[in-house]
Parts: sequence; structure tokens; C-alpha cells
Amino acid sequence: MKYATAFASEMTWPDYHAAVREGQTPILIPIGSMEQHGHHMPLHVDVLLPTEFARRVALAIGALVAPPFTYGYKSHQKSGGGNHLPGTTSLDGATLVASLKDVVKSFAKQGVRKICLVNGHFENSWFIVEAIDLALREARWDGITDLKIVVLSYWDFVHNEAIAQLYPGGFPGWDVEHGGVLETSLMLALHPHLVHLDRAVDHPPATFPPYDVYPVRPEWTPPSGTLSSPREASVDKGHILLEVCTAGIVAALRTEFG
Amino acid sequence: MKYATAFASEMTWPDYHAAVREGQTPILIPIGSMEQHGHHMPLHVDVLLPTEFARRVALAIGALVAPPFTYGYKSHQKSGGGNHLPGTTSLDGATLVASLKDVVKSFAKQGVRKICLVNGHFENSWFIVEAIDLALREARWDGITDLKIVVLSYWDFVHNEAIAQLYPGGFPGWDVEHGGVLETSLMLALHPHLVHLDRAVDHPPATFPPYDVYPVRPEWTPPSGTLSSPREASVDKGHILLEVCTAGIVAALRTEFG
Amino acid sequence: MKYATAFASEMTWPDYHAAVREGQTPILIPIGSMEQHGHHMPLHVDVLLPTEFARRVALAIGALVAPPFTYGYKSHQKSGGGNHLPGTTSLDGATLVASLKDVVKSFAKQGVRKICLVNGHFENSWFIVEAIDLALREARWDGITDLKIVVLSYWDFVHNEAIAQLYPGGFPGWDVEHGGVLETSLMLALHPHLVHLDRAVDHPPATFPPYDVYPVRPEWTPPSGTLSSPREASVDKGHILLEVCTAGIVAALRTEFG
Amino acid sequence: MKYATAFASEMTWPDYHAAVREGQTPILIPIGSMEQHGHHMPLHVDVLLPTEFARRVALAIGALVAPPFTYGYKSHQKSGGGNHLPGTTSLDGATLVASLKDVVKSFAKQGVRKICLVNGHFENSWFIVEAIDLALREARWDGITDLKIVVLSYWDFVHNEAIAQLYPGGFPGWDVEHGGVLETSLMLALHPHLVHLDRAVDHPPATFPPYDVYPVRPEWTPPSGTLSSPREASVDKGHILLEVCTAGIVAALRTEFG
Amino acid sequence: MKYATAFASEMTWPDYHAAVREGQTPILIPIGSMEQHGHHMPLHVDVLLPTEFARRVALAIGALVAPPFTYGYKSHQKSGGGNHLPGTTSLDGATLVASLKDVVKSFAKQGVRKICLVNGHFENSWFIVEAIDLALREARWDGITDLKIVVLSYWDFVHNEAIAQLYPGGFPGWDVEHGGVLETSLMLALHPHLVHLDRAVDHPPATFPPYDVYPVRPEWTPPSGTLSSPREASVDKGHILLEVCTAGIVAALRTEFG
Amino acid sequence: MKYATAFASEMTWPDYHAAVREGQTPILIPIGSMEQHGHHMPLHVDVLLPTEFARRVALAIGALVAPPFTYGYKSHQKSGGGNHLPGTTSLDGATLVASLKDVVKSFAKQGVRKICLVNGHFENSWFIVEAIDLALREARWDGITDLKIVVLSYWDFVHNEAIAQLYPGGFPGWDVEHGGVLETSLMLALHPHLVHLDRAVDHPPATFPPYDVYPVRPEWTPPSGTLSSPREASVDKGHILLEVCTAGIVAALRTEFG
Repeated sequence: MKYATAFASEMTWPDYHAAVREGQTPILIPIGSMEQHGHHMPLHVDVLLPTEFARRVALAIGALVAPPFTYGYKSHQKSGGGNHLPGTTSLDGATLVASLKDVVKSFAKQGVRKICLVNGHFENSWFIVEAIDLALREARWDGITDLKIVVLSYWDFVHNEAIAQLYPGGFPGWDVEHGGVLETSLMLALHPHLVHLDRAVDHPPATFPPYDVYPVRPEWTPPSGTLSSPREASVDKGHILLEVCTAGIVAALRTEFG
Repeated sequence: MKYATAFASEMTWPDYHAAVREGQTPILIPIGSMEQHGHHMPLHVDVLLPTEFARRVALAIGALVAPPFTYGYKSHQKSGGGNHLPGTTSLDGATLVASLKDVVKSFAKQGVRKICLVNGHFENSWFIVEAIDLALREARWDGITDLKIVVLSYWDFVHNEAIAQLYPGGFPGWDVEHGGVLETSLMLALHPHLVHLDRAVDHPPATFPPYDVYPVRPEWTPPSGTLSSPREASVDKGHILLEVCTAGIVAALRTEFG
Repeated sequence: MKYATAFASEMTWPDYHAAVREGQTPILIPIGSMEQHGHHMPLHVDVLLPTEFARRVALAIGALVAPPFTYGYKSHQKSGGGNHLPGTTSLDGATLVASLKDVVKSFAKQGVRKICLVNGHFENSWFIVEAIDLALREARWDGITDLKIVVLSYWDFVHNEAIAQLYPGGFPGWDVEHGGVLETSLMLALHPHLVHLDRAVDHPPATFPPYDVYPVRPEWTPPSGTLSSPREASVDKGHILLEVCTAGIVAALRTEFG
Repeated sequence: MKYATAFASEMTWPDYHAAVREGQTPILIPIGSMEQHGHHMPLHVDVLLPTEFARRVALAIGALVAPPFTYGYKSHQKSGGGNHLPGTTSLDGATLVASLKDVVKSFAKQGVRKICLVNGHFENSWFIVEAIDLALREARWDGITDLKIVVLSYWDFVHNEAIAQLYPGGFPGWDVEHGGVLETSLMLALHPHLVHLDRAVDHPPATFPPYDVYPVRPEWTPPSGTLSSPREASVDKGHILLEVCTAGIVAALRTEFG
Repeated sequence: MKYATAFASEMTWPDYHAAVREGQTPILIPIGSMEQHGHHMPLHVDVLLPTEFARRVALAIGALVAPPFTYGYKSHQKSGGGNHLPGTTSLDGATLVASLKDVVKSFAKQGVRKICLVNGHFENSWFIVEAIDLALREARWDGITDLKIVVLSYWDFVHNEAIAQLYPGGFPGWDVEHGGVLETSLMLALHPHLVHLDRAVDHPPATFPPYDVYPVRPEWTPPSGTLSSPREASVDKGHILLEVCTAGIVAALRTEFG
Repeated sequence: MKYATAFASEMTWPDYHAAVREGQTPILIPIGSMEQHGHHMPLHVDVLLPTEFARRVALAIGALVAPPFTYGYKSHQKSGGGNHLPGTTSLDGATLVASLKDVVKSFAKQGVRKICLVNGHFENSWFIVEAIDLALREARWDGITDLKIVVLSYWDFVHNEAIAQLYPGGFPGWDVEHGGVLETSLMLALHPHLVHLDRAVDHPPATFPPYDVYPVRPEWTPPSGTLSSPREASVDKGHILLEVCTAGIVAALRTEFG
């Protein structure tokens, strides 16, 4: 089925109800964060990007996009610069787990049986896993045993061919792709007015020892807050990423949700 | 201070940091829900309206708007139709409390000292109160004792003169103003493309006995999901409401935040 | 069935068991607080009053009264003067929710299928709602699907005719009825030795702005701790209230519990 | 200081405030349960007894009695017959811990510095210990470091001389004193109208293997629900117990609270 | 069935699976603590002893021993010296409850239907009881209704004959058997290299008033940390204890698990 | 300082106290799991390995090893085969977080200021991070602000030179190193009697799509439970790994703990 909008929240309840009550329409839930993304990008990159991927995928497969999670788990120094940085506004792990669990169960109660969690903030990953386990457990206690949940982070769909194209000078690794070429290119393609490339700070990829220290040592994070340089970001790369990831997710959900 | 945007999430972290680090810039947090709003309005009315009030107020007083809470507490039959209705997707009380607590504490850690919670979903009210109490307690444990928090629901700023203007046939009471004249007029003024007034169901205000029953009796809620008729809603009334409530909130925050 | 006492706690277990095992006998649970009630009334007004209403109703309909909850949720400044006042001794929201949930489930496990929560402390209201939702959920997980719960606050049964009789000078509104005419009249009728009307402080009804501030501003609450004057309270008004509310609750429970 | 009543809940807040604000007046909190106590006693024995001991002690040392906890932890088969018995209505451990913690902290915030928890239900013991540890921890986080808490179960003050007097035929041990001579004698002395000695079931003391099994084996508990026979109970023994335990507790609190 | 090892953790999963999938093989879970045990014994006495009893019993009845719980509930002054003593490293009650609950449920999910919790640390007792109640509840919600759990503390199997043999000079009572003859003899028999009897402090049994005080008064605990003297401990007594308790537990589990 | 044992639990409390009270001696806490490790290895590989690394490192730098965590977070299909596999016995995320938090705080209360969490089970990683954040928060509330915590997984210290030596045929990636060459070689070097190489199943490295599905699809995991073949494991490789990782961790802790 196709709707005038991909966003469930823009629908009236009778339309929404017609869409989900048989359990055939998948719901895609974007899960983001409010987190610093360097001197050149705004604080809600991790909300905007998974929401847009969810929207594109939903339109392609006849799914609906649920309201995004606007806050996420604490930023980790080696993947997001660290939770001590201004603007990074985070939830405890248990809070994120409970929020996601409640929402998944609420959708299941309405008849939804196919849910895809579209993650945009790396640090959310394991708390999403736990939330799903608890939601499935409680759904089971409520007699719901046919709920199927797919979890993904959009960047995991960037295949090696795309990486070669995007990082001709060599891929610094996903670990340090915080505020770097990937996110910046996507933002340039989608929300150019929110990107201030002129203010981007160029620096070599951050390197870290093979362990963590707490309280974090602020000096381990580049002063910009990014972990690799966004200098090579471009609108074109953004479009490549949009295409590659959307296609990958669409194929995955077609496989899983039929 | 004035910024190009009222939305904190659209700022880079250095700009955001400059704004909040001294504690003078208030942060306004819209708290909504995903809830059915009748046959004529979408599911995120309770997110859109407080976000817009927060934006207007922020621009007026030099504050910033935080990302909204997109899910809220369970819908109550007498004020929102009931949590059993399709589209209504809710959090447990403890989850909402924890989420708000975490976010308030996170802002406080960054230096914010003036926070206003702008509620758009009646059922959130007491869990917001609890979240504030717990956030202030833990902030205190962290040595932060000068955090000031204002909580408000925008409709509480509709004064008697406005009510007389908006409801010439008599005010049915806030209790049944779910999907009625107030919310519908505001949506007509702000997001007309999301309102399908032609699909609105006209019915007398819902009446309830002076107690609740659980599990809810679905037949107590009008089939439309609204608790009073939106028929008398209009763009003009929406503008009156926008003006009256914004002015009221601006005055309140000037009093409280200086 | 009628018993020598309305209080379940005064019965032996074989008598209690005979009463509840078929699920026909309703259990009424009074939910109060330990809260200041002005210079003229004791701290457990909110326990004594719902317990007495529960007792009268139980005797009328053949129900039993469970032990009261002696502590409740935090006092709110606009309805109870505020939680900062001496004598006001409160539970966190989650604690009240858990307590009520456990007790409701425990009764259900014993065979009780009709439960009425009789609230005497306004601030408990939403945490009672949440407790019921969670108790019904877990009862359902335990295979109990025929549990019916009625929630009420006794003052909601004061009809307009009674209000006209009780407040000939005009009704200040339930909001400020903390330690005012209603509670004081009831206490005068029931427990006159606990009321010191000579120490009551006369003052105009408290007025508040349309928002809350935290930490509370103590100066918003009248120094007495009451929100309206108890001066017009009387034994006669107490008897009117006892009669009106008891009759209302009896009728409600006959409707709901058969 | 002496008051007209030992019960804090019967005082107005100014009187209560005058009593506790300097931290010199101890607060005694009775902690009971709703639990079956055989065919001859009511369900709130464990509330009535510690409340009465608290009252006597309070009058003797100038302390105040807080509202009792009317529900307690689950009955254990070897000390209370088991939680499966009708009438036994219980809280989860975490719920009791949270309730006590909240109340202790609330009193501490009001200035109370000497608290005595008077337990009347054996199974509460370890959850009381945990609640105190958590309350002291959080009080400490709030800068309160001079809070002193005494915990006691009244039966621990029955000295060997009294035991010889009370059980001339030999003491069956505290373990099986559920609904036996001790509790029954106290109830006979205090609330004779609530005791139906004619319905008491005579049986030898219950014996159990040196381990527990779950789910409990109902057949291990005597059909009466008591664990030893109340036949030898008497008003006189009740008065001995009242005297011995009161004197012991008074001495203890004089030692600890000065 | 007999295995090469009593320890489930030393088996491969196919061997383990073959053993437990039919639900006939009992699992024994030792539950200990990290707690000071005087000047002469190490901190993990409470892990080593129940693990060894579990091993012996498992070999005798064809059961398996699960990995031990290496941390336990807080040490109580009257039974373990107090939680303030160096080396005593403890969990909150809720943490121990959750850990045990999760592990019991996890075993049940794999097909285990007979579980014995072998406690080695007195203070764990009531949190074990609560964990079992919650685990059985959630197992039930998952449709598992035939799970049987035995709980025991090995010292409860020391019968009166053995006590007479072990304490010829009179038994000081289990209460003060912390680091005394029982534990020291067992350690001498099993792990002599970990016992420094020359460093043991001889002192009369600790005596305590019939109540607790918090924060604990350190001076109530003997400076050694033990509550009675280990001087009379011996290897021979250790062997008597090993034999008596093992035989008792084996008999109990044969009775309960068939 | 050097002790006769690296294991804190084998020390008497006076020795332990002397070691830690000044805060100079680091404590290393091994964190493992009970998890299937293929047909050829036992269920506690993830406990044995970090415990041994901790022991070696402790001896080298004068630290102490705390009792290991014997249960861990749920096995993830892509890194551990999945939590549905027999033998895999797991904790909820919140339980692991609470356990670790309590233990870290308990050590800090005793004077420990340098703690290293040595992880042996990949899935524990993010719950360890959360536990540390919460432990530091509560330690701070208790006035402890100089606690330093290092977290590491031993395999992160395998440098590229070692990888080249260990995997001459190409490194399959850490993702699928569950029960493969790394763990098996270490076990062969340390606990050969627990490894049944003859029962090891040879298979190509597992491959997974770039997303997860829940409930897991059992068929995605190789039937053996391992994610890559252990065939090329050897005692020699085990010794290389022991040497490389120990040296790396020793250097890291010397840097961090001085």
C-alpha cells in the first residue's frame, strides 16, 4: 500500500489503523541522538539521517516511519568524541532501553508485526539490542509471538565498492567516521543550509590506544569534536551514500518482510 | 542573545556552547505524544503545537528549543480518548520520568540553569512533575543547586477573555478539549495541509461518570476519538490562540528567568 | 454478604477467604497520604476520609475495605501547598506505583476480581492510573483477564446541588480545596476531637500563575498551608458531604460491580 | 517534650514541626503486614502490635509514632505459613525497600535525625536493612550525615526469664511463633474483641526440613495457618510481654537516642 | 547420568545440552560473597565452601554445578562483622535478586527444571528467596510451570549430634559462627594453604544488643572481624562437617528431585 | 608491592587492606560469561581467559585480581552465535550494569582508586561502559572524585604483527573469532585438558547480512556454535597471544596507573 506520506505521525488514526491493523505494513523507527558533530554540523545529524533513510525506504516498500527518537545513549570518546562535549545530551542506557521497549510493544499492541529500527547513532546499538530482547519477551507474555524486528545502522550498508569511491585516499575506518566524510556528505546532499563547511576543521583521523579510560581524557578527542576530517565531503558523495544505503536497506527489508 | 534559529539542534556545538555555558540562555523542551486526534488530525498534534509555541517564545526571549519528546504518557479516556485507540503509542510512566530526568540533567551538566518544559499532552503532566523532582535531586547531588525549572501546558494561558471569544456558544471545559476547537484551530493556523476538516466528526461533548474503569470501556469514547466537536474551529481562532498563549508564556518566562 | 466488620484486616483468614474466593466481593482500597492540612487539622486527613467513605460504601454494598495506604505521592504546591512543608512525608511516584501494583495483584491472586481504589489525596491520581495499568498487564500475564478496577476520588461525587449548598458564597474550585471547607467539614463530622477550628487561619483562596516553578517558591503557599479558608466549615456540611459522596459511590459501584 | 498524642499523624503541622525540627524527637515507624494469623486472629496482627509498642515507647521517651506500613514482604512458609495463603497480601522486596527508603528520607529532610523502625513481621527484616542502607546513602548524598537509625523487632526483647514464664512447657522457638502464644497473648491483652480463641486450632509446633522448596508445598503448613498452638495464650501473658518488650525497647532507645 | 566433571562450565555445549535438555539433571548454583573472614582466612570462604558442597552433592546425585556467584549481599554486623570492613565487597539487594533471577530463568529456558541454590553467605538468604519468587513468576509468564527450586544453606544440615561433637565446650550459636570453628574447620580440611591459623585471633563470642544501629558502630565488631574464636577448629572437624552436610543435602535433593 | 598471590580473594583482610587502603594498588576485575564455545571448548572460556590475563598483569605491575564475573550479557548472533544456544546463560543488560556498578563502588569505598575491567566476552562491552559511568557518578555523589577506571578487552592488544603470525592464511576478522583460532589457542596453552580439538568442527567463517533479525534465525549460526574454524589453533599460537596481550596490557596500565 502507498500513502500520501511516509510519516505515520502525519496520518489520521483511521488511515493509520487501516494501514497497520493486519500487521502487513512495516513500521520503521529512526533512533538518533542530540550530539555534537564538529564545528560544521548541527546537533541533530543523527536524527536527520536515519529519518531520511527511513522515509526513502518506507516510500519504496510501502512502510511507515514512526516519530524518531530524538535523544540517544551517551557519546563514546572513540566513536563520538565523548559525552563531556557541549551539546551532547544523552540518556542513560536503561532509559533508552525502556523507551524503545515501550514503543515497540505499543506498536505491537496495535497490530504491527514488522518493525525496523533504523539507527543513526553508533552508541545506541547495544541498548537497541537489549530493548528488542525485552520487548519480544513482554510481547510473548502478552501472547504475541509473531513479531519480527530488524535492526540496522544505515552505514553498514555502504559496500566496499562505495567505500573505494568515497575514500579514494584510503578509508580511515568506521570508528572515526564521526562528523567526517560520510555524515557530512549526506548532510550536504540533504540539508546543505545546516552545514558550514567553511568552519570544518581539518585534522588527521583520531587515534586511540586499545583501551578506554574513565573519566575520559578530553585531550584524546580532537578539539573540533570530529574524529576524522570532513574536508573531502561533497554533495556527490552524499548522493552516492543515499543511493547505496537506501538500496541496501530496501533489499534487506524486502527479504525479511516479504 | 539572538540566533539564526531557535532550535538548539540546528546549531553547531561551538555556537550552542557559547549560548548556554553561562547559564543565562533558557532551554525550552517541548513534550508531546503520538496520539490519535480524531478523524481529521494527524497523530503528532501534541508534538507540533508545543514545539511551535516553544519556537515563538524562544525567539521572543532569546531562548533555545531542545528536540521535542515525540512519545508521551498513556492517553487517558477522559482527556484523550483512551490508550486503546489505534495510533496512540505510549510510554510507561517510569520511562517518561527517566527520559525527562536524563535530558534535564544532561542540559544542567552543560551549564544550562533555566529550563522550561512546554507540555502539549495533558497526560504527561504528573510524570513531568516527578521527573523534575528527581532531576533537581540528582543535580543537587552533583552540586548544582541553582537550576530553575518552569513547567507549563500552553492551554493554561488561554485567559477568560479568549475563551469567551473562542467559544461563543459556551466552553465545554478543558477536559473534553481533545481534538476539539482549540487544537484544531491551532493546527489550521499552523499546518492546514495536515488537517482534514471535511472528515471531522461532529458530536456533542463527551460526558463521563465521576470515576474511571479499567480496562476502559471503549464505548465511553465517541467513535471519532475526539471528545468534543472540532466543527467550530477556524484559522482565526488559531491565530488568537497562538497570540494569547505565546504572549502569556513570554510574560511568564520573563518573570521567572529575568 | 454482610460481615461483622467492613475491614478485611479485622477478619480471620477463613472468613476473609469465604468472602473473596468467588470473586464476587469487591475490595475497596483507601489511598491517602501523610500531609500537612493547615493549622487546624492533623496530618492524616487524607487517610481518614477515604477510609471512612470506603467503610460506609462497603457496608452498603457488601464489600470489604483493605488496609489504607498511609503514605502518598508528593504534595503539589497548587493542590496541597507543596512538598516542602513540614509534616508532608511522601513517596516517589515509582514507589507508589509499585506498592499499589503489588497489592492489587496480590488481591487478584486470592480470587478478588472487583477492586475499587478510593483516593483521598489528589496528587496520587496519575500514579494510581499507572499502577492499575501495570497491575492489569501483569495480571493478564498470569492469565487473569477478568479483573475490573474502579478508581475514584470521593470529592468528584459532590454534585452541583451540594456545591451550591456548601458554598453559598461561591465555590472557590476544587484546586484550592486543600484544608478548606470540604475536608474540614468532613473531619468535623467524623473526628471533631482532631480538628482545632480555633487555630484555623482565615485567608482568601490562594491564587497561582498558570505554570509551576521548581524548586517551589514557598511564598506562593499561604503561611497556613491551606489553600482556602476553612472558616465556613461545619458539622452539618460534613454530613451533607458524607451523604452525597457515599450515595454517589454506592450507586457507581452498584453499576460497575453489579 | 510530651504531646497530647503519640501519633504524629494526629498532630497539626505546626505542632509536629515544633517537635521534630531540631532533630531531637525520635520518630518510630511501625512496619507490619497483611497476613493470615490462623483461624483465631485477624489479618493485621502485625500492624496492631508494633504500632502499640511504638505508642507505649513513644509516650515513655517523648517520641512520635509515624503512620504504620500496612503491607509487608511476602510471608515465608517456615515463619508465616507461606505467601500462598488467603488473606496474605504482600509487596515485592524492592517495593518495600523503596517505600521505607522514601519515608525515612522524607522525615530526614524535615529535620528528623533519630528514627526507630519497629518491625512486627519477621519477613520484613532484611528488606528493612536494605532500605536503611539506601536511605542513609541518599541522605548522605544530600549532605545529611548525622541520621541515626535503630531497627528492632519487638519479640527480640523477650528475655530468657520471660520465656521461662511464658512457656512453662518449653519454648518451641521463635521460628514457629506465628499465630502462637506470643502474638495471641498480646492480642488478647490489647484487642480481645478481635481474637476468637474458641476457633483457635490446637496442633503441635510445625516442623520443617532444613531447606525450602519453591513453589511451596502447601501441605508443609498446618491447615490452620499457625505454626504453633495458641492454646496456652492468655491475657496475663500478654501483659507480661507488653511490659517486658516495652521496657526493653525504652531502655534501648534511651541508650541510643539519649 | 554421570559426567567427567561436576562443573557445567567445564563441559562443551553438546555435552551440557544432552545432560539438561530433558529437565532431569539438577543444576546446583553456589552463591557466595567476597567478605572478610578474620585474620586467618581469605576473602572467598563463602564461595569456596558452597562450591565444594555443590560439587560433592552433584557427583553423588548426577547433578551439575553452575558457575558460582562470587559477590553477595552486604555483610551484616551481627552475622558477618559488618559491611564497613575492608575486603567486604557487596551488591545491593536488588542487584543480587536480579542476577539470580536472570540466571535461574536462563537455565529454565534451556530445559532445566530442577535447581538447587546452595548458599554460603548468610546475608544472601532473603534476597535468594525474593529472586526465586520473581524467577518463578516470570518463568510462569513464559509458560514454564514445572520448575522446582530448592534453597539451602549448607550449615543448616549440621544436626545436633554433630554440633555436640564439634563444640564440646558448648555451641555459641550460628549467629556468631562467622570465621569461627565451622568455616575454619572446613577450610582446613579443603584448602589448608589458604588458612593461617597462627594469625587467628582468639576472643569470646561477640555479643550484641537485641537491635541494630545504622550507621553501624564499628566497635561492636571484634577487631579481628570474626564473631567467635576459630581456635578450636581442626581438619577433623572439617571432615565431619563435610560428611554430615553433604549427606544431608544429598538426602534432601534425592527427596525433592527424585 | 608484591604478594604471594595475585588474587585478592585469597588474601586475609588485613593483608588486603594494607594493599589497597592508600589507593595505589590497582584492582583488576575479570568479566566473563557462561557461553557455548563450540563442540571443542567448555562454557567458561570467557571467564578463564580474562582471569588469566588479569593474573599475569597483576603479578607484573603489583596489582590484585578481584573475583571474576562468571555470568555476562546475552550472546549476540554475529559475535557469539546467539543467546538461544544451549549452555549460554546470560544476564539482562541492567543486571550486569548494576552488578558491576555495585562492585566498583564497593572497592572505591575501601580506598581503591585504580580499577581495570578486563573483559573476556565481547557482548559485555557497552554494559561495562554504562556501569562505569553510573559508578563514577555515584562515587562522585559520595565525594570520591579521583577514581580512575581503565576498560579493555584483551584481544584488542593483538597487534598487526601478531595477527600476521597467527593467521597466515588471512585474518577472518574479530567479528567471527568466537571459538576460533584465538580463543582455542589460548585455551590450548592454558587449559589443554578442557579442549577437545578432535571434536572441533571445521567450517568457513560465518557470514551475516549487514543487519540483525529478532527473534534470531538459528540457521544463520553454524551448527557448531563457533563462527570460524578453530582448526589452525595451536599451543604455540596461544603462547604468542599470551605474551603479546599481557605485554600490551602491562604497558597500558603502567601508562595509566603509573
